[in-house]
This record gives sequence, structure tokens and C-alpha cells, in this order.
Amino acid sequence: MSGVSPLTLNRLSLYLRCLQDLQSTGVERISSTELAERYQLSASQIRKDLAQFGEFGIRGVGYEIEHLRDRLRGLLGLDRQHGLVIVGVGSLGTALAGFPGFNEDGYRVVGLVDADPAKAGRAVGALRIEPPPRLPKLVRETGATIGVLAVPSAAAQPSYDALAAAGVRAVLNFAPTQIRVRPGVRLKNVDLRVGLEELGFFLAQPSRQVR
Amino acid sequence: MSGVSPLTLNRLSLYLRCLQDLQSTGVERISSTELAERYQLSASQIRKDLAQFGEFGIRGVGYEIEHLRDRLRGLLGLDRQHGLVIVGVGSLGTALAGFPGFNEDGYRVVGLVDADPAKAGRAVGALRIEPPPRLPKLVRETGATIGVLAVPSAAAQPSYDALAAAGVRAVLNFAPTQIRVRPGVRLKNVDLRVGLEELGFFLAQPSRQVR
Repeated sequence: MSGVSPLTLNRLSLYLRCLQDLQSTGVERISSTELAERYQLSASQIRKDLAQFGEFGIRGVGYEIEHLRDRLRGLLGLDRQHGLVIVGVGSLGTALAGFPGFNEDGYRVVGLVDADPAKAGRAVGALRIEPPPRLPKLVRETGATIGVLAVPSAAAQPSYDALAAAGVRAVLNFAPTQIRVRPGVRLKNVDLRVGLEELGFFLAQPSRQVR
Repeated sequence: MSGVSPLTLNRLSLYLRCLQDLQSTGVERISSTELAERYQLSASQIRKDLAQFGEFGIRGVGYEIEHLRDRLRGLLGLDRQHGLVIVGVGSLGTALAGFPGFNEDGYRVVGLVDADPAKAGRAVGALRIEPPPRLPKLVRETGATIGVLAVPSAAAQPSYDALAAAGVRAVLNFAPTQIRVRPGVRLKNVDLRVGLEELGFFLAQPSRQVR
């Protein structure tokens, strides 16, 4: 029960998207088999994933969509607000600051930090870019719990360390480099190239199916 | 043999990163157990993933790193060049155009398209932004095989359709919306929010371990 794989968690996010989509079309109940068919998932995988977190469905009846959605939201921490501080406000940081998924349903960008003095004070949406020495105060005042690293690789480790020292509890890292983590400050690396390599497999071997 | 899961492919990308890291430190050979320990992976998962693609290791000796790396590169299509056309050159498109992972080792951004007339002709790095009617010519002349969608959700489907009509064979989509695919033009959705929700699980349940 204690060890949960990131892949399972990523599938919970996917199931949640499907349930929200179903709800928007008025569906109230669905079986794992129907859910799997509709979204090209694996029914046994759905049952196995959900079983790690308790009893959700009724045999022969399926899942109550609203109930399952609320439980998944609770598991993924979406029933509370998470403030995000983005460090590095180049084009990627600017894109993330305005990205809907970073500003709805549990998440909101509450702070922007950039080391370039020329950017200090500049407005991006409703926020102003702050210099790095202001990070501790920014985290304290906004209650931000998650840092987002959108800096070049060379700046990723010092920026992670600064976020950890400032008191965030988790960091989402977009820089393609390895970071040494501190206890209590979880790191999630986002590798934007992985999707390209998945497509590359398909292009290299067109005769093979990807499930 | 014919069905390969995207998750397996994403792990091949991860193994490749690890092998390249090992090579840079002068290591020439490694067992699945050592590889797993060093990068906090699962040894049985490594063996199972690789077994889908042939024999790579020697029992009791392990993997020749250079050989395995080359085989993985071939599987992921990194032994050839893929030209990328980015559609949507806002802050995300601009970030991706300059992202190292999109411009090295098998991949290169060769075209930029944006529907905003004010952007046409503007330079981003060594490329100029082209208007949508130029897409077919751009794909033909550059030989681009992959389109990258960095447009708002409402523009994602028509942009996918235009890329498909222009002759690309795969599309990487960053817009948080569902796209109806055409036969022969593979789609990979990148959900930038999934990483946040994985961190959200950890923050909601600090006593639970994530593997």
C-alpha cells in the first residue's frame, strides 16, 4: 500500500480527465470495461490502479462517476489550492504562467522570479517578475507550495536549492539536467523530448503498432 | 511482438539518458541490477522492456553500453534526422523552437507557422515565421515529418488537419484538448499538468511514498 508508482499516478490523472469528459456529456455511471473501450484504456489496469486506493466500484454496476471523480481529486490533492512560483521567466516560463492547466482546479501561479535584472518589475498577466533575493518572502507571503523550474540547465540546481530553502515542498523541473534533491522537497522532472522519441519509434518502424 | 506500449517507449528514452550519462563517465558495461540501482529503476522492468526488442545483454556480464545505446537510438529513430514544424509561435512555440531537446540528436526545428499576420516574417533564431497557407510548401521543401502544435485549444484540430494534409507523419500536441486523428498521422498528446498532479498526490499524502 505504501509505494505508489508515478505511472499509476499519471494514469489517475488520465482517468480523471475521462470522468470529467463523461460528466460533461451527462453520463452518471460507467463500468471499467466501458471506460476502457471509450478511451482506449485497459480495463484490468483501471481496476488494478484504483484497487490500490480502496473500493470505488460496485460489481456489475460500475463506478458512480461523480463519486469516483471526487475521490481521484482528493488523492491528487485537487481539493485544495496549490500556489506555484515559476523561476525563470523566459519564453517557457511565460508560457507556463499563462497555461490554463497551471491556473485552474487546484493550481494557480502566484509568483514569478527571474535573475535577469532587466526583467525585474515587468508584468506578466497579473503578476510582476521579482528578483531572486525576494524568493523567500514571496513563498512566505503567498503560501506557495510548488516551485516550477523554467531556467537553463546550468541554473537548475541553484534554483532548486533556493526554492527548497524558501520553503516550497515540491519542484516541477523542465530543465534537461539531473538535480540533487533535498529531503522533504520532492522533484518531478518533465522531459519534453520524450514525446518526440515516442513518435520517432513510430516513424522508424511504421509496420509496428503502438498500443 | 507487434503491440508496444507508449510507457515502454518512454522508459526506453529514460534508459537511453542513463546510458549516455554512464558513457560520459567512462563506464563501458553494466548489468540490469546495477543500472536499476544507480538510477532508481526496476531491474526486472528493464529486462522485460528490452526483451521485447531482442537480445541485448549477456547473462552474468551485463550490457555493453555503447551497443545497447546504439540499438535504443535505432529503435527510437534517432539514427535519422526528423524535421519539426511548429504551429503556433506564442511563448510556448518560441520556447520549443529554442529548446535543446528539439534541436539535437535526430531532431531539428525546420519551420515555424503562425496565423497572426503581425508575426509573419518575424525571425525566431535562424527561422522566419510563415503564414498558414505556406505550410504545404514548407513541409515539402524541408522534408519535415513531425508537426508540433503549440496553439490554443480551439485551433488544435484545424492545425492538426492542416499538418496532416501538408504531409507530416506525426504530430506532438501541447494543446489541452482531444483531437480526432487521421489514419497514418500519429498523434502524441503532452499533458503539462500531469506532473503537477503527481506532485499534488505527494503533498496531499506526505506519509505515502511515491516509488
